[in-house]
Amino acid sequence: MRLLLLNPNTSRDVTELMRVTGAAAAAPGTEIVTMTASRGVPYIATRAEAQIGGALVLEMLAEAPRPDAAIVAAFGDPGLLGARELFDFPVIGLAEAAMLSACLLGGRFGIVTFARALVPWYVECVAAHGLTGRCAAVRALEGRFASLSDVQSEKEDQLLDLARAVVAEDGADALIFAGAPLTGLGARVRDRMPVPVVDQVVAAVKLAEAAVALRPRKATAGAFRRPDPKPTLGLPAALAARIDGTD
Amino acid sequence: MRLLLLNPNTSRDVTELMRVTGAAAAAPGTEIVTMTASRGVPYIATRAEAQIGGALVLEMLAEAPRPDAAIVAAFGDPGLLGARELFDFPVIGLAEAAMLSACLLGGRFGIVTFARALVPWYVECVAAHGLTGRCAAVRALEGRFASLSDVQSEKEDQLLDLARAVVAEDGADALIFAGAPLTGLGARVRDRMPVPVVDQVVAAVKLAEAAVALRPRKATAGAFRRPDPKPTLGLPAALAARIDGTD
Amino acid sequence: MRLLLLNPNTSRDVTELMRVTGAAAAAPGTEIVTMTASRGVPYIATRAEAQIGGALVLEMLAEAPRPDAAIVAAFGDPGLLGARELFDFPVIGLAEAAMLSACLLGGRFGIVTFARALVPWYVECVAAHGLTGRCAAVRALEGRFASLSDVQSEKEDQLLDLARAVVAEDGADALIFAGAPLTGLGARVRDRMPVPVVDQVVAAVKLAEAAVALRPRKATAGAFRRPDPKPTLGLPAALAARIDGTD
Amino acid sequence: MRLLLLNPNTSRDVTELMRVTGAAAAAPGTEIVTMTASRGVPYIATRAEAQIGGALVLEMLAEAPRPDAAIVAAFGDPGLLGARELFDFPVIGLAEAAMLSACLLGGRFGIVTFARALVPWYVECVAAHGLTGRCAAVRALEGRFASLSDVQSEKEDQLLDLARAVVAEDGADALIFAGAPLTGLGARVRDRMPVPVVDQVVAAVKLAEAAVALRPRKATAGAFRRPDPKPTLGLPAALAARIDGTD
Amino acid sequence: MRLLLLNPNTSRDVTELMRVTGAAAAAPGTEIVTMTASRGVPYIATRAEAQIGGALVLEMLAEAPRPDAAIVAAFGDPGLLGARELFDFPVIGLAEAAMLSACLLGGRFGIVTFARALVPWYVECVAAHGLTGRCAAVRALEGRFASLSDVQSEKEDQLLDLARAVVAEDGADALIFAGAPLTGLGARVRDRMPVPVVDQVVAAVKLAEAAVALRPRKATAGAFRRPDPKPTLGLPAALAARIDGTD
Amino acid sequence: MRLLLLNPNTSRDVTELMRVTGAAAAAPGTEIVTMTASRGVPYIATRAEAQIGGALVLEMLAEAPRPDAAIVAAFGDPGLLGARELFDFPVIGLAEAAMLSACLLGGRFGIVTFARALVPWYVECVAAHGLTGRCAAVRALEGRFASLSDVQSEKEDQLLDLARAVVAEDGADALIFAGAPLTGLGARVRDRMPVPVVDQVVAAVKLAEAAVALRPRKATAGAFRRPDPKPTLGLPAALAARIDGTD
Repeated sequence: MRLLLLNPNTSRDVTELMRVTGAAAAAPGTEIVTMTASRGVPYIATRAEAQIGGALVLEMLAEAPRPDAAIVAAFGDPGLLGARELFDFPVIGLAEAAMLSACLLGGRFGIVTFARALVPWYVECVAAHGLTGRCAAVRALEGRFASLSDVQSEKEDQLLDLARAVVAEDGADALIFAGAPLTGLGARVRDRMPVPVVDQVVAAVKLAEAAVALRPRKATAGAFRRPDPKPTLGLPAALAARIDGTD
Repeated sequence: MRLLLLNPNTSRDVTELMRVTGAAAAAPGTEIVTMTASRGVPYIATRAEAQIGGALVLEMLAEAPRPDAAIVAAFGDPGLLGARELFDFPVIGLAEAAMLSACLLGGRFGIVTFARALVPWYVECVAAHGLTGRCAAVRALEGRFASLSDVQSEKEDQLLDLARAVVAEDGADALIFAGAPLTGLGARVRDRMPVPVVDQVVAAVKLAEAAVALRPRKATAGAFRRPDPKPTLGLPAALAARIDGTD
Repeated sequence: MRLLLLNPNTSRDVTELMRVTGAAAAAPGTEIVTMTASRGVPYIATRAEAQIGGALVLEMLAEAPRPDAAIVAAFGDPGLLGARELFDFPVIGLAEAAMLSACLLGGRFGIVTFARALVPWYVECVAAHGLTGRCAAVRALEGRFASLSDVQSEKEDQLLDLARAVVAEDGADALIFAGAPLTGLGARVRDRMPVPVVDQVVAAVKLAEAAVALRPRKATAGAFRRPDPKPTLGLPAALAARIDGTD
Repeated sequence: MRLLLLNPNTSRDVTELMRVTGAAAAAPGTEIVTMTASRGVPYIATRAEAQIGGALVLEMLAEAPRPDAAIVAAFGDPGLLGARELFDFPVIGLAEAAMLSACLLGGRFGIVTFARALVPWYVECVAAHGLTGRCAAVRALEGRFASLSDVQSEKEDQLLDLARAVVAEDGADALIFAGAPLTGLGARVRDRMPVPVVDQVVAAVKLAEAAVALRPRKATAGAFRRPDPKPTLGLPAALAARIDGTD
Repeated sequence: MRLLLLNPNTSRDVTELMRVTGAAAAAPGTEIVTMTASRGVPYIATRAEAQIGGALVLEMLAEAPRPDAAIVAAFGDPGLLGARELFDFPVIGLAEAAMLSACLLGGRFGIVTFARALVPWYVECVAAHGLTGRCAAVRALEGRFASLSDVQSEKEDQLLDLARAVVAEDGADALIFAGAPLTGLGARVRDRMPVPVVDQVVAAVKLAEAAVALRPRKATAGAFRRPDPKPTLGLPAALAARIDGTD
Repeated sequence: MRLLLLNPNTSRDVTELMRVTGAAAAAPGTEIVTMTASRGVPYIATRAEAQIGGALVLEMLAEAPRPDAAIVAAFGDPGLLGARELFDFPVIGLAEAAMLSACLLGGRFGIVTFARALVPWYVECVAAHGLTGRCAAVRALEGRFASLSDVQSEKEDQLLDLARAVVAEDGADALIFAGAPLTGLGARVRDRMPVPVVDQVVAAVKLAEAAVALRPRKATAGAFRRPDPKPTLGLPAALAARIDGTD
């Protein structure tokens, strides 16, 4: 099966980090292909950036060769529900996959990330997935970091301290180090944490495999049926074709 | 005060309908200026379209001369939270204004609209505003309509029957005819409905006036502070400048 | 339009403070008339006092010349739902107006007040309006104050510190200084607060204007239709007439 | 122990019906004394009437000789929380007692009553007690009735049909025939209902006995401590004394 | 009436402590008989132990002579809902009774217990009863204790400090010292606590009396009707007979 | 990896049906071993049976050779949380896996099953997983069936009609045919359903593979740490050893 790992950020090294992590966890026969946004921001951290990045996700999915399933590879899942509505293959969000996997390992999960700006967006993401009751806390480091691609090592000690606080003070039964740049951190520090750690990319790849194994048909009813065709103006060609039904 | 009524749809006649309705309700001294999207779809009806339209809202707000307040004039409020975060004047959503106004007039409001595709998006909009407990129902007509700008007269009888059902069966204490093309319908049929009717544009103009009267400062803390500057790639110039802080 | 600002407390100087603040924010053409309770307590602070004060609200509304809209001018909104049910003009609560306005300016609002006794009642008021999910915290100063009409200046520093804590610790995106005696405080300290501040009386006047602009009819169905006439015993004449239908 | 059964309605025959029912269920040693409102309405059915009736409850409790516990004997519990705050003996609501007892007998209870006007108030009462999740439905007969004191026999067949619908369609596991005039109906029809029936007065007497058996002290902290003394104006003497602390 | 107080733990001295406390609160005519588990653990503290203990509850209830009502005398209520479904007399849980009684005495109750392991199970118990909104906090002592039957005196000071913190910090209006070994503690320390204290066994006995007074029939519809007979394999004889309908 | 598919029911043919379905979906390298209960009932359908079956799950897990992960293969997940607490390998519930997988494919899932008795237990299972907000409905056929192992073909038409109603009337975006005897039905009828169908066993196997891929450590903190050792009386040897820490 061919999984499209779509990074709606412009940071190609983060895409590569996710590809390597995902490939190591994939089942035999799973091929991971990647796309990285050519417009936008290095990492989506706010609602405004998620609005823009989510629209890019739709453009990119329309332009990509049809995969067996796609992963929206930014924690926060920009554009996820629109993509699930518009396309006929499974689309999985990085946050969604990490949270649902964490549900398998305990009662409530804690989300730990590297930048304060991310917190409101993540909190809304948890709520949009109906998982607020399963979330012990969303916490972030204060302060700036030197380099996005190195933030997980630069801030490792602080991130681990914060994660321990989320367990001790907020009662998390499982931990998610959230945000694409933190991919792989969990595997490295797993034995130093007092509860199970979910790697967001491993979760996304395995849940995408699960979704494909279920061989779901495209809904023809309900909230995720393909919208009726509609004329468009000025949209990128592939996306326009998907919306106006000429694809 | 200058209110920017921003229609993220491409339908200019709907913009004009909203302008006329809003101007009639505005206080002396309130000037309403409009913008209509030059890209996108005639009316946003799905999550995918809202994702795209919400990104356009940010572009358009960045390009417009600074107003005293802006109205995102599509029920469903595409891009609202991102806009509230990114800009330093009040931004009000059409759905938000209609729902909060309806809260003043009863316990639970009912939302009635003209196309089934809108329902999941509207339901999510209600939830995103934390108003699910105040919403009796979201219901839509089945079937197609001939013309967007005439849908409110073409379907008037069916819309009124549906609204009466929302009162009788779902227990709505107030009604919202939702979707920009239904602007003005409420005023026309008010006396035939058994509960108060909220016109979405009247509500948005009056609540925008209220927001300006409160003279709110831009948050420097919390979830709606302006995000830290960040480099961008390939975004429209004005929006890029707002995000990278060079505006 | 004529707005009745009804203070169910016996403190006439607080009524005047609210009138002045409201008049400054009113649109041209809005006239504010006031009533102050001749029975009861100087300021309602507990559920028992709100029970008594809410019954007075109904008496006073029945006795007043019919306004275009009325404001129940005590934070906590004593008697509001009964009034909305019994009378055929819009009735707006001070708390309701402040909270709904705060919703326009951010995600979650914080309520800060001057006396601990108020907190349980305010918390129940937030819940009764279905806005618990939008409320970051309700916090009050400990300790006594010298004079009700001067409490906002006497306690200004402590109130501001508490408000800052509600932003920093509870995550409020907007602030309400709650309780009629704090009217006007927000305007004075707005620039020292890190998030927008809502003045409760400004909010109530502007939302009452909005309600009138919507020209709502009296419900003839649902939870806010006028109750069927019913005989009464020993009630004040105007209220009795409103209940037994002889008014 | 001496239980005060306080009817905030003016209907003395309903008070007597409740006294007889309660006395039959009371433990040896429990004496039931009654009070009936001398002002107000024959039966409280709306929020406005509950606001007035709840204030009467406070007056009457202040005037009554101190009981071991009191029952606010109107379903809907007017004035209950204020009374619990103001007085130092247990005060139990008729609705509260019926609902908490029903919780003992199944998962979700259904409330059936005789007049449509009662429904919004009862729904708010369920919510105020935090029991919405335990309530399958609140349903009422449509139409008028001839006499309050005979409504339970006049409408018996319709009430039973409605109760059966609440079980079959709404999934109630226990039933409450709500409203003081329906006292005793449950005992008479118990064997014709498919789920356990709770008599509101039996429940209130037994839970009042339970509250007394727990020998609870008056709170000196939290939301039900006695409010600090406060001057009053124009209130009935006993209530004024309780509020200003001179009792 | 004959109440069966069933201890699903193996600690006979705790059973006796509960019998004595319950008997002192029982009405004239109430006889309390006890059973203590002959298998299992000294005190159930985890979900796994509750799973096992709950199955024992069903076995023991099937083997006991039919009582007028039964009390599952372990806080956490193992097996309660299954028992309520399977048997035709009222079955009351210790936690359920304590929590519902606490609801009569204030807004939100606090649960204080002696061992950290109990907390997750208790939290789930509160949620299973739909009372999360009425629960201020569940808190437990850290550290080990010397003897189960003496834990309430050994740890009295710490338990009282913790209880005071639950009032001051979490806002509890009533307190429950939870866990069968703490039976009787509340009565002893009542006057040293700032809010009413509910003894779990007193509550259970009085609510069992209330349930019997309501003379509830066994449901023949809904979620607590007796399940249809079903063949069993290898279960204890009395329980098998109850399930396969040959009892 | 070795997955233990543990059927807490006594029906061996249903175990085999699940094994075959699971094996077909498993990744290369995944071996599925099974256990079937030797005590209990043919299929767990009530809370009482789930209480007993859940205790058997713990016994059986203690006796089985340690797997890489285990599946509690009864929809309703008897004993799941206790097992997750007690054992140090991932334990996945059939209902949990089906529901979390359905979350990937739409907004709200619908659960359709073959016997009315199952509904209350399933509803509680949904709530216990915190997924009530993601569940459109739980519905069951009325009436009896001839044979457990053939129920899916005997009742196929009725089940499909019911499933279509859950989509059309309750708004389900994905469907789960729930209950071990319905394993494989979804795959057979997938193309006749208007929304994606989740097979519970396929979901459980793929999510168990995901859980193993995450290589979670056993929690040493939080609600799923292994309980402290505790003496036991009369429990099966392997389970006793796991609880008293001598394993």
